[in-house]
Amino acid sequence: MPVSAGISQKTTMAPSRTEQLISNLIKIGIALTSEHDLDVLLEQIVTEARRFTRSDAGSLYVVEDGLLRFVVSQNDTIMKRQPGAVPKNPYLNRTIPISHQSLAGYVASTGQILNIRDAYKIPASEPYHFNKDFDEKYMYRTRSLMIVPLKDPQDKVIGVLQLINALDANGKAVAFSGMVEELVLSLASQAAVALKNAQLTAQIKKAHFDSILRLSVAAEYRDRDTYYHIQRMSRYSAMISKHMGWGKAEIDLLLYASPMHDVGKLGVPDSILMKPGPLTHDERKVMEGHTIIGADILGNPDSDLIRVAKSVALTHHEHFDGTGYPYGLRGERIPMEGRIVSLADVFDALSSRRCYKPPMSLDHVIEWVRQERGKQFDPACVDAFFEGVDEILEVYEKYKEPAPEPAAKEPQPAAPAG
Amino acid sequence: MPVSAGISQKTTMAPSRTEQLISNLIKIGIALTSEHDLDVLLEQIVTEARRFTRSDAGSLYVVEDGLLRFVVSQNDTIMKRQPGAVPKNPYLNRTIPISHQSLAGYVASTGQILNIRDAYKIPASEPYHFNKDFDEKYMYRTRSLMIVPLKDPQDKVIGVLQLINALDANGKAVAFSGMVEELVLSLASQAAVALKNAQLTAQIKKAHFDSILRLSVAAEYRDRDTYYHIQRMSRYSAMISKHMGWGKAEIDLLLYASPMHDVGKLGVPDSILMKPGPLTHDERKVMEGHTIIGADILGNPDSDLIRVAKSVALTHHEHFDGTGYPYGLRGERIPMEGRIVSLADVFDALSSRRCYKPPMSLDHVIEWVRQERGKQFDPACVDAFFEGVDEILEVYEKYKEPAPEPAAKEPQPAAPAG
Repeated sequence: MPVSAGISQKTTMAPSRTEQLISNLIKIGIALTSEHDLDVLLEQIVTEARRFTRSDAGSLYVVEDGLLRFVVSQNDTIMKRQPGAVPKNPYLNRTIPISHQSLAGYVASTGQILNIRDAYKIPASEPYHFNKDFDEKYMYRTRSLMIVPLKDPQDKVIGVLQLINALDANGKAVAFSGMVEELVLSLASQAAVALKNAQLTAQIKKAHFDSILRLSVAAEYRDRDTYYHIQRMSRYSAMISKHMGWGKAEIDLLLYASPMHDVGKLGVPDSILMKPGPLTHDERKVMEGHTIIGADILGNPDSDLIRVAKSVALTHHEHFDGTGYPYGLRGERIPMEGRIVSLADVFDALSSRRCYKPPMSLDHVIEWVRQERGKQFDPACVDAFFEGVDEILEVYEKYKEPAPEPAAKEPQPAAPAG
Repeated sequence: MPVSAGISQKTTMAPSRTEQLISNLIKIGIALTSEHDLDVLLEQIVTEARRFTRSDAGSLYVVEDGLLRFVVSQNDTIMKRQPGAVPKNPYLNRTIPISHQSLAGYVASTGQILNIRDAYKIPASEPYHFNKDFDEKYMYRTRSLMIVPLKDPQDKVIGVLQLINALDANGKAVAFSGMVEELVLSLASQAAVALKNAQLTAQIKKAHFDSILRLSVAAEYRDRDTYYHIQRMSRYSAMISKHMGWGKAEIDLLLYASPMHDVGKLGVPDSILMKPGPLTHDERKVMEGHTIIGADILGNPDSDLIRVAKSVALTHHEHFDGTGYPYGLRGERIPMEGRIVSLADVFDALSSRRCYKPPMSLDHVIEWVRQERGKQFDPACVDAFFEGVDEILEVYEKYKEPAPEPAAKEPQPAAPAG
């Protein structure tokens, strides 16, 4: 490596333009690799690359299942023309094949950079052609293009960055300088590492959530609760906390912790948990003990996640007015996570079908939630619930239980409430 | 941002030395941020920084709980002197306080770089001093030092990099050039992002493993299995797979998947699972069904983790000679993960105390494992077990059940085998 040879040079010249550009690249690399939110990162890659090359517009594709998915579209000219009312690019999230016909497809399949002076004057002899649909729809004129592969360190293309209309000092679209090709390729490599890292983190987090869901459902195997219940109630909890102004990290914690709210039922004997008729007073006390057993199972938390899960397990049956169990805590003495999950859990229990009961109508459940504001539920949670009610109904639809098989439609014996 | 101004320049001069250095930095940044294994990364940070500055030696501290932990030590001179028999630096993993007295402590607390011409000639007026212990122990002469803070993008110091003895073209120790300070600070910022990312990934993975352990233990709440059993058997499984030559990712999958091997016991009624006496033939059949129920609970896997967990749940009671259950699979027809966990699970059951039985002596269990080679267990697994037996005994000691309370020492009724 010839790197060290230069170190002893003692010149005091001002850094060259190229040096400035390259050291800017290092800062961009640091900024990109320290961003872990995938959606934010994708936008940021295009923003930084456009700023670096001074381009009017830019877009980004990521490789998914052998296709290119269009994930980011930025365009200053259109944005300025319709401030505040920019229609979302209708091509977003569409996929195109990785083939030589499209510009992005060509770059993805060859791994080569394309530097095009005028998109409308591509020689017919080239395999790729420019698609004018977007330009015509938005009355835009794409001229110069620099299309760059995002290659990971193993040289695999994982995305394609498209920079559109380099601007000169007067804001006029000019060709991209051949000089910057190397630098933009470097930027793309840094972006590729950042993208891969963020994808990996997202994948690990997803696997984590999946495991928790699986095992939480398993923990309720003897009960009547289902995968769908766990999916919905954890998402309802997250929605409510979001509309209470919680930060992303805390919302995620609650999303992951809330599925574990009923693990304590593992400590309730079959004879009570699965009893077909109503419970006696003593049996009910044992049943209510699932909150304390849950906190015990999740005891000595050594992570934030388990700490929240334990708190939820213990307090998700407390009522805001002090009439709940196990301790009859009132108001602010119930931890906020318990108050949120309480609403999410009961809302789901009432609004969904169980094998022992049909669902209550949505209108009825919603009206009932309103009535319990300040009684069973924290008024602040109820308000957040109504603020996010559209998203809650989306979850309700998306994670609906499949209709039961015809044979199972016969009425079942009533089961005890948990 | 003045970045774009330079783009239209069309010069064809060869890149300057500084340009070469900076563009090397970009490559180093990409290499570091794409390394996710924390231990590998820590070494790599020192290796790359030494190569970049051409230093004979280097070391790295990371900030942990308000202290500096010494995590990497590299020294070419000592390495060449005793090839193949370099003693591990005895100071490794020690911590020092973040105070102005030590060089690394000074850099960590002030956030400033130190460039020292001769470690033995630091003026007494400076708050910090050089510790000669290492030099004296290894007959080494530390001369020049460059000590750099690893700052995250929020400017927080998360580590300290120490470069020792810059070498000139003849291999003679010379001072570090003031010219490279900026560049080494850049390298340190890139290293800081990479380090933070790797720490974050490690933390997410740890949280994931913790949740799985918790919930798997919870799933066996009605059974006699404990947190310690789950901890040990999952680690035994990982050790065996390691000595069978598996890759790191596969080993991790098995480590995470194996705790779930008995989730199917959730489907076994209390009356059988908790029966104090021996089981009838029919009861035993129900009990053995926990393998099939487990596979059912973990059905439709949408991740590699759950796929492996399902396979383990189904097959961890099969025997290599075909005498196991539920299907009496033989040899290669049992998936490898099932063969490994079978050995790990039984070894732990025999070698550990349960409330209904004392542990078998280790010598006996090990002898018995040897005898079952090719009968109950895959010979390849048994061989890997013996290859890694030292590590297995370490886990055995480390995750030993605490001695039972005196009151609980009375003999308990025998419990059925799972």
